Amino acid sequence: MKIQNAEKVPVSAVEGQGAEGVRIRWLIGKDDGAPNFYMRLFTVAPGGHTPLHSHKWEHEVYILAGQGVVRTADGRTAVAAGDVVFVTGGELHQFANVGGAELKFLCLVPKTAT
Amino acid sequence: MKIQNAEKVPVSAVEGQGAEGVRIRWLIGKDDGAPNFYMRLFTVAPGGHTPLHSHKWEHEVYILAGQGVVRTADGRTAVAAGDVVFVTGGELHQFANVGGAELKFLCLVPKTAT
Repeated sequence: MKIQNAEKVPVSAVEGQGAEGVRIRWLIGKDDGAPNFYMRLFTVAPGGHTPLHSHKWEHEVYILAGQGVVRTADGRTAVAAGDVVFVTGGELHQFANVGGAELKFLCLVPKTAT
Repeated sequence: MKIQNAEKVPVSAVEGQGAEGVRIRWLIGKDDGAPNFYMRLFTVAPGGHTPLHSHKWEHEVYILAGQGVVRTADGRTAVAAGDVVFVTGGELHQFANVGGAELKFLCLVPKTAT
């Protein structure tokens, strides 16, 4: 059993692929012995965004705070706290902060993503 | 891609094994074609609790709101919004609401749990 406040987990910048203002905390990961999937907390600064990309693994996302837009091949959808986003493998996707405060969301990936 | 507010996902009561005041929403599950793991939102009414039990699969939990206590074989730990709980396979565990408002948390499980 591991119990920890998310804010106390070490944070690092996400760089490359056009990411801007993005930070990540690995809340539950390989080092915890998680056997199947990993939980990460992303924060995106106002005006920032994750890479616009696709990959073979899925994302399971829960928006915690802020005002975001999810961009896909089909367009853009506004998201806010309490919204759930399931990005299937192979889908183009990007999360952008369009508000004035931090955008915060959980994003879980299968172990095979890393 | 699926984008939906969590509150709009159908809710059902969790019954049996001593559960009290517990409701579940399957935010991302089998019906969405999730290939590896599933995201559920639990709400526990004041005074309520999940079963005190163990099973072979893990839980990856993020507390969204309320005042809770996690009970294990080793004792009890208070949890609140922003806390992360990793329950490994085989560990005895229970989530109880010790506050005056709803306890809300995400709890993700591997596909093999169901």
